Amino acid sequence: MEYPLLNNTNSPQDLKKMPEVDLHKLAKELRSFIIEIVSTKEGHLGASLGVVELTIALHYVFDTPNDKLIWDVGHQAYGHKILTGRKEIFDTNRQLGGISGFPKINESEYDDFGTGHSSTSISAILGMAMASKLNKEHSKQHIAVVGDASIASGMAFEGLNHLGVTNVNALIILNDNAIGIDPSVGALKKYLTNVKAGTAKDENIFECLNLDYTGPIDGHDIAKLIEELRRLKKVKGPKLLHIITTKGKGLKKAEEDQVVYHAPGKFDAATGERLKKNKGVQPPKYQDVFGHTLVELAKQNQKIVGITPAMPTGSSLKLMMDEIPDRAFDVGIAEQHAVTLAAGMSTQGLIPFCNIYSTFLQRAYDQVIHDVALQKLPVIFCLDRAGLVGQDGPTHHGIFDLAYLRCIPNLIIFAPMNEMELRNIMFTAQNGLDHPIAIRYPRGKGVNLDWKKAFETIEIGTARCIKEGAETAILTIGHIGNQISNILEELGHPKSIGHYDMRFVKPLDKQMLRTVFEKYKRVVTVEDGCCAGGFGSAILEFANEENFTTPVKIFGVPDKFVEHGTIPETHAMAGIDFDTLHSYIKSTSTKCD
Amino acid sequence: MEYPLLNNTNSPQDLKKMPEVDLHKLAKELRSFIIEIVSTKEGHLGASLGVVELTIALHYVFDTPNDKLIWDVGHQAYGHKILTGRKEIFDTNRQLGGISGFPKINESEYDDFGTGHSSTSISAILGMAMASKLNKEHSKQHIAVVGDASIASGMAFEGLNHLGVTNVNALIILNDNAIGIDPSVGALKKYLTNVKAGTAKDENIFECLNLDYTGPIDGHDIAKLIEELRRLKKVKGPKLLHIITTKGKGLKKAEEDQVVYHAPGKFDAATGERLKKNKGVQPPKYQDVFGHTLVELAKQNQKIVGITPAMPTGSSLKLMMDEIPDRAFDVGIAEQHAVTLAAGMSTQGLIPFCNIYSTFLQRAYDQVIHDVALQKLPVIFCLDRAGLVGQDGPTHHGIFDLAYLRCIPNLIIFAPMNEMELRNIMFTAQNGLDHPIAIRYPRGKGVNLDWKKAFETIEIGTARCIKEGAETAILTIGHIGNQISNILEELGHPKSIGHYDMRFVKPLDKQMLRTVFEKYKRVVTVEDGCCAGGFGSAILEFANEENFTTPVKIFGVPDKFVEHGTIPETHAMAGIDFDTLHSYIKSTSTKCD
Repeated sequence: MEYPLLNNTNSPQDLKKMPEVDLHKLAKELRSFIIEIVSTKEGHLGASLGVVELTIALHYVFDTPNDKLIWDVGHQAYGHKILTGRKEIFDTNRQLGGISGFPKINESEYDDFGTGHSSTSISAILGMAMASKLNKEHSKQHIAVVGDASIASGMAFEGLNHLGVTNVNALIILNDNAIGIDPSVGALKKYLTNVKAGTAKDENIFECLNLDYTGPIDGHDIAKLIEELRRLKKVKGPKLLHIITTKGKGLKKAEEDQVVYHAPGKFDAATGERLKKNKGVQPPKYQDVFGHTLVELAKQNQKIVGITPAMPTGSSLKLMMDEIPDRAFDVGIAEQHAVTLAAGMSTQGLIPFCNIYSTFLQRAYDQVIHDVALQKLPVIFCLDRAGLVGQDGPTHHGIFDLAYLRCIPNLIIFAPMNEMELRNIMFTAQNGLDHPIAIRYPRGKGVNLDWKKAFETIEIGTARCIKEGAETAILTIGHIGNQISNILEELGHPKSIGHYDMRFVKPLDKQMLRTVFEKYKRVVTVEDGCCAGGFGSAILEFANEENFTTPVKIFGVPDKFVEHGTIPETHAMAGIDFDTLHSYIKSTSTKCD
Repeated sequence: MEYPLLNNTNSPQDLKKMPEVDLHKLAKELRSFIIEIVSTKEGHLGASLGVVELTIALHYVFDTPNDKLIWDVGHQAYGHKILTGRKEIFDTNRQLGGISGFPKINESEYDDFGTGHSSTSISAILGMAMASKLNKEHSKQHIAVVGDASIASGMAFEGLNHLGVTNVNALIILNDNAIGIDPSVGALKKYLTNVKAGTAKDENIFECLNLDYTGPIDGHDIAKLIEELRRLKKVKGPKLLHIITTKGKGLKKAEEDQVVYHAPGKFDAATGERLKKNKGVQPPKYQDVFGHTLVELAKQNQKIVGITPAMPTGSSLKLMMDEIPDRAFDVGIAEQHAVTLAAGMSTQGLIPFCNIYSTFLQRAYDQVIHDVALQKLPVIFCLDRAGLVGQDGPTHHGIFDLAYLRCIPNLIIFAPMNEMELRNIMFTAQNGLDHPIAIRYPRGKGVNLDWKKAFETIEIGTARCIKEGAETAILTIGHIGNQISNILEELGHPKSIGHYDMRFVKPLDKQMLRTVFEKYKRVVTVEDGCCAGGFGSAILEFANEENFTTPVKIFGVPDKFVEHGTIPETHAMAGIDFDTLHSYIKSTSTKCD
């Protein structure tokens, strides 16, 4: 593919020199370029394809980077990155040392605010606009592009509610494609659908919030976009432009299957056909173990309900939504609501499985404490994508959960080492548990092909000895324990080393720990989460309370944000990769065996 | 005061036997009873006075506790408590062993959901209503009473957004009095004002969200309320009733000064006149040290801005709002927005002081991580009401902050031991600090009369030795250090005991700690926060990393929710009170001195 216009566009300044009539050609090239690169390098596709025209129009009309521009979530910012000097390195997207898959404040002067989690852009752009006002930069423009799924989240509403009583120059562009990662839900979505269909009553929700509303307009009509943006540039005060776009625009398959083509993996750039990975039979993803097990349990236990805040596909709750739709709910990007909804259901005897990515549970931290744990309601939290998540990078690593949950009274915290432990703790949790529980498991695959075994109850607060040893006890939590098993196998099962799958971060298996601390000369803890306040820290607290002086070595994520890369690469950055652990264990075992 | 009707009303069943024409007399008695008790026992006054008629009407019309009723925040639930069997013990309100100042699920079958933090009621009632639907209890009613300040918070919007696409029997009663603790703010407030004035356009924001809207009606007209509630009881699906009330209704002074009479302390029940406490000259409240110091600094540094989510009075940011209104902002109950707004401002060179109660920062945890710390934006968080807060109880204790903040990279965490340390860290933070910082200080007074001293810079990560010792080092964090100073003074400054004001939970003063761990035979840590993952835990992590085996004794809040009582009583429940610490230190020093 040739890119004559795009190749001469290395900055918005270059773009501005282009005649407006050529911009649709540039859009075509930009779209092709995104498709070409993402088809081989992978990444988020559909969102960026949907805003190609908008991206060009924004940089054409506004004076970036002097004018401020924030892309909410940031999945849709590939075109923005390519047009702002990162075309040549766009093929490093999401790779170790390469550019981030999200806008990132220290990556480019054009990335005014880092995003990743949704619905932050309105607050951030308002902060910038208020700053401009105080700094007397009255002509500066401030634009946030936010999708219809993101704008329905509570944080976005808080931003709009404040924005509407200011007189700053801020333009919110509502990019309405009726889908986030999965299709949008909720009353606002329904309202927007009515607006687009012309069936809304004579009312406008954004005007109710004192915003100057324009729209809806066709977000793929670049001339119309430019005309509107130019007009709005001259309108003082807070305003909202409602544009309609199609996610995946320009690639037929991506338009047709927007959920899959949100991040389709490798595909044929010409046809859009996804490339089949032929890796033979593989263990299942943890998310699918969750999804299938939940359906299995829910068929037996009518009290079970499933809740996801906008991640039906990613969490595999979709399996239950398809099979038992009256008891499985996608509540949209609304983690706070999801948790307290679950609490409310729990008071009435339902058994809610509330599945939230570890990093997104940060959004509902107060609700976990105040609405669930304080009232000791037996809500079952399933925290997917816990630990280092790889290419999505520091905005998405689920490494703080053990620390931020461990301080909450009444809450049980469990991390399965494999598929069966996940299944069995889910079975245990729905079978009359009288405490809330957080079950955290990582992105990616488990370790067993034959995982659909009969359910067994796991006694709360019990660890599992995988291997007895003589000198060094390795205590692991969750899936990373498999890394230790593999290392021990490669080292020929050294007699000196014991290995314990602790499973429960809370309550700890104190009986087992007493045995361990009495028997071994040293204790090693390994976790896929932050060291500060995490699992290892809990072990130190135990040892201190019980006056053990056995030395403890803690492996976990150090006190820094870990950049993006593959999961093994991010593990290496954190010092919890195979090689680092192998080398430590080898040196320890050699001393003794 | 006589209460002939109220004395015969020990349950909603009794209430239902009363002729409707007598209810206004009951309202009068209920109002008087609340005033009589709160005037001597203290507590939240204005909110409950405002909903006397609503409370009676709800229990008159609905079949509580079979029908579900949630009071958002719960400040307004005193009438509800009195009418549901707690009249005789209402004078124990907020006292140790007495009833809670908020609805509490295990206090009464009529308290369907515990509240305290705002804006949870819509999600919780929807959860209950969805459960009723699944449980085929089709006639069950579900009511949430939520104020106009609370409904403007993001979480409430998330609830409404979901509610609008369900077909459950849920009634949201918007209790619109145009004030939370301080006057309401924001575009929604403006919109509601227009609705009440009849100047709103032909549009309705709640109808946009697919809710059946009724109102506004006079919330003090008990007959009208009963009529509407009876009508709405028969209307299927989600609906919203907008009522207008006056906070403090029925006590002239409370109506006139609604902010002060939110929780006025002791007052004359007849006149409303507040009783002057004559305690002589006292040290200032920490909140006022914050407020006055911020004004002082902001006058010198034009880049400083102040932000509060709905706590201008409680945080004393009001001092800056009055003196420098263009740089001090109340954003409403919107902690998430407040934090990311601050982040946006910070990117443009402003220096935001974002003041949030410790317990409410739980609402913005993700924003602290994702928008501030990850981008290393030097936002200055001032966390008021940190530690055990006394009468507000477990919903409001600010005891998790050290644990949940300590795991966040890039974040500095400081706790001042006195007014000067608070002043000086604020001075230091606004003077070119290149990291975000969280400054946490307690509810209540400091310890110095002469606190307005010249500013001094505090070197980041440095502790302060208050007293050298020989055997035992006591490491304290924040205000609770004064308790140790007092104990040591009472014990005649035992030579064996050293005392260190650590100040920074992060970064720790490792140099000082090395000296301490090398010199002393034992180390004691004292904090007004949870033990799990808190300050003491950080000391254990340090000692472990540096291979110190000195025994450490940790005093802090154990792993349970601490009930309400006075601050000393809550400290005693947590084992960090004067007597417990005194006894421990005495026994330790006796062994040695």
